Amino acid sequence: MNDTSTIKVGILGFGTVGQGTWKHLEENADFWEKILGVRLIPSRASVRTLDKERKVRIPTDLLTTDSQSIVDDPEIDLLCELIGGIEEAKRLTLRAFSLGKSVVTANKALICEHGEELFQAAEAAGVHYAFEASVAGGIPIIKVLRESLVANEFPLIYGILNGTSNYILTRMENEGASFDSVLDDARELGYVEADEALDLDGVDAAHKAVILAYLAHGLWVDLKDITVEGISKISNEDLNAALKLGCKIKLIGVIRRNFDNNHVSVGVYPALVPMAEIIARTDGVYNGISLTGSVVGTVVLTGRGAGQDPTAGSVISDLVDVVKGIKGISASSKLVHVSPNQCLPAQAIEIEGCYYLRLSVYDKPGQLAKVAECLADHEVSLATVSQSPQGENELASIILTTHQTNEHSIARAIESLEGLDGVRGKPVLFRMFDPNPEKE
Amino acid sequence: MNDTSTIKVGILGFGTVGQGTWKHLEENADFWEKILGVRLIPSRASVRTLDKERKVRIPTDLLTTDSQSIVDDPEIDLLCELIGGIEEAKRLTLRAFSLGKSVVTANKALICEHGEELFQAAEAAGVHYAFEASVAGGIPIIKVLRESLVANEFPLIYGILNGTSNYILTRMENEGASFDSVLDDARELGYVEADEALDLDGVDAAHKAVILAYLAHGLWVDLKDITVEGISKISNEDLNAALKLGCKIKLIGVIRRNFDNNHVSVGVYPALVPMAEIIARTDGVYNGISLTGSVVGTVVLTGRGAGQDPTAGSVISDLVDVVKGIKGISASSKLVHVSPNQCLPAQAIEIEGCYYLRLSVYDKPGQLAKVAECLADHEVSLATVSQSPQGENELASIILTTHQTNEHSIARAIESLEGLDGVRGKPVLFRMFDPNPEKE
Repeated sequence: MNDTSTIKVGILGFGTVGQGTWKHLEENADFWEKILGVRLIPSRASVRTLDKERKVRIPTDLLTTDSQSIVDDPEIDLLCELIGGIEEAKRLTLRAFSLGKSVVTANKALICEHGEELFQAAEAAGVHYAFEASVAGGIPIIKVLRESLVANEFPLIYGILNGTSNYILTRMENEGASFDSVLDDARELGYVEADEALDLDGVDAAHKAVILAYLAHGLWVDLKDITVEGISKISNEDLNAALKLGCKIKLIGVIRRNFDNNHVSVGVYPALVPMAEIIARTDGVYNGISLTGSVVGTVVLTGRGAGQDPTAGSVISDLVDVVKGIKGISASSKLVHVSPNQCLPAQAIEIEGCYYLRLSVYDKPGQLAKVAECLADHEVSLATVSQSPQGENELASIILTTHQTNEHSIARAIESLEGLDGVRGKPVLFRMFDPNPEKE
Repeated sequence: MNDTSTIKVGILGFGTVGQGTWKHLEENADFWEKILGVRLIPSRASVRTLDKERKVRIPTDLLTTDSQSIVDDPEIDLLCELIGGIEEAKRLTLRAFSLGKSVVTANKALICEHGEELFQAAEAAGVHYAFEASVAGGIPIIKVLRESLVANEFPLIYGILNGTSNYILTRMENEGASFDSVLDDARELGYVEADEALDLDGVDAAHKAVILAYLAHGLWVDLKDITVEGISKISNEDLNAALKLGCKIKLIGVIRRNFDNNHVSVGVYPALVPMAEIIARTDGVYNGISLTGSVVGTVVLTGRGAGQDPTAGSVISDLVDVVKGIKGISASSKLVHVSPNQCLPAQAIEIEGCYYLRLSVYDKPGQLAKVAECLADHEVSLATVSQSPQGENELASIILTTHQTNEHSIARAIESLEGLDGVRGKPVLFRMFDPNPEKE
């Protein structure tokens, strides 16, 4: 700390969120000084190219392409790591810690991959590592989970953790537009990340689900070990069929803990969510998270999950907490406290649920009976069945929903169905999300 | 502080929430010790009568009818004020502060009436005064407003702040049951406060709205100066008419700030809320609060607004924050930071909105024209009109909705309507809530 009356903030990565953070710090400097008794000064920012046109303009001499020079700058007290990516971000963060500097980040991929190491390094260095902006943009889920609901254990946390995929699904549903045409629009609007798989294949949501699982249960789940499915196989036909079943198809992250055996399952996948759930009715670019706690019952938070302002707002709120800590006014805990209970990842055979299944079949007598028999062979029992012509050759769609079964059984049943005479193509399978599953 | 490894908690008022807090502290003592490095010991509790049967039983010698003896007990480090009411609670709280003891409270009426004095006294004494449990039970609205959304200004905060009245409205709507019959059930279920006006006449919600208005805008609004209406005049006919208009009638607290003139309006009243709002679909005993912030956009939180466990959970989360502060592990700020902007209460003539109006009229030709003319005379213009027979004598219901008008004009129009020939009884008037009102 150079001067007790100012705190100089260095911003690593001057994209949308970095610029929003700078702008806000600058515009509200007087406000923060009044609250914190110290002036927050956005002082330097690192960029990839110096001469790009930017919405938030700052003097060129405050910009650099060398992020490390900002970390190392003895004038800089505090860092916002907003460069994204993993290796470089990790190196810079650890370097900041080693220099006794706290870091505020929005980098979910980094925390998902290396959270354990980073949290330990921050603790060892006695600095803060704050990451509210990493999950669900403006929704204060990290603070609510860590502080407000600290008296709870969480049998279920689930919700929409990626705004881009939710935007695409909402428009497909509302307009009957195709996945591809809405995706083109989303690209034009700048909603889709450069690495599209992050948004479309559920990876971004999975990063966030892994972080939430850690905060709620103290278990670092490996991304490789969990189900991560995206939205690309969802068709308008499925969205309509879901509506008839009183559901919407949403890409959800689901973290369940079974308190009998302390197994935790984490997954991200499209699922039919009953309309009674707020999550089913969370549309467009909004995120929504439903937390069921042992003490509080179910609390649901919805809000913008991304975008310059909401995410910058979370960065600012973390900055303020960290500064309060540094200045001894008060602070969020430096430590990430997690439930001291031991728990383990659940196995596929334990993960029970109901399924939605759509098959293209040649419309011949006895076809449905064959399908039903095949499912019964794998001990998958049916809840509802409907059949409708596809208006194409002699093909029909069979839409089935199942009673509770496990991931293992349904996977084997699908394999058999694929080989069944009269079934064309790959069956479409989605989970049906049930917030209150009955025990077998 | 007696022993650095324990903190002894005294509980003033051993009703539902007090018992829940005691039970939780006792059952999870090991957990908290692990997190906080200090053992939280629920040590004494005060009651009105010693020999009452209670669900949570504790040794008789830990109970007393003399709350002050607990406050004064040098063994007691920290107090939970859960006795409710105003004068006695205030006296005990100030006494605790003067003894250097922090207080956690769920007492919204007390904070609404004397918050300014109490916050100042706590600050002067250098102790914590935490009140998350006072607004919306398990929903962490205070922390979210004060800490997570600290970078925002709030043009609009609104929501359902009283679970009992929401339970009654939901059952009336779902079952077509009458207000009186549902109220009887709610009384039997123990949902209604001893002083029924708190729940039914909007007073409880108004206490909470006043607290939220202070936290968001730094303005203490006097309960006497704001609109506070309850649910008793809502009929099944109105609930049905609202549904046809794509709305539900909810008892909402609404805090709007006009940033042009810095006027803040606070009110609690039944209003037609569009179904697209999560608040409209927040049913039963649930509370829901929608915060629109200048940075974050709209964030909505829903959850149980009352009850032993959610409220006790908020008390516990406050206790943990306060203990972290005392122990120097970290802390929520002792100070209640509010926006340093100056603002003023809005006048009725500035408060614009649309209205729903139901009139009982004698079904004669020209009646509707007379009503429309009367409204036009007061510069209230109509948006929709529908008329239906009441199946009773020659009476009909006219249901009208208006375009934007101000509280002053509509009040004068209603007065004229009451005196109009052919109109029977008092017109029923509800506000139509519009989350995004257009400026005139």
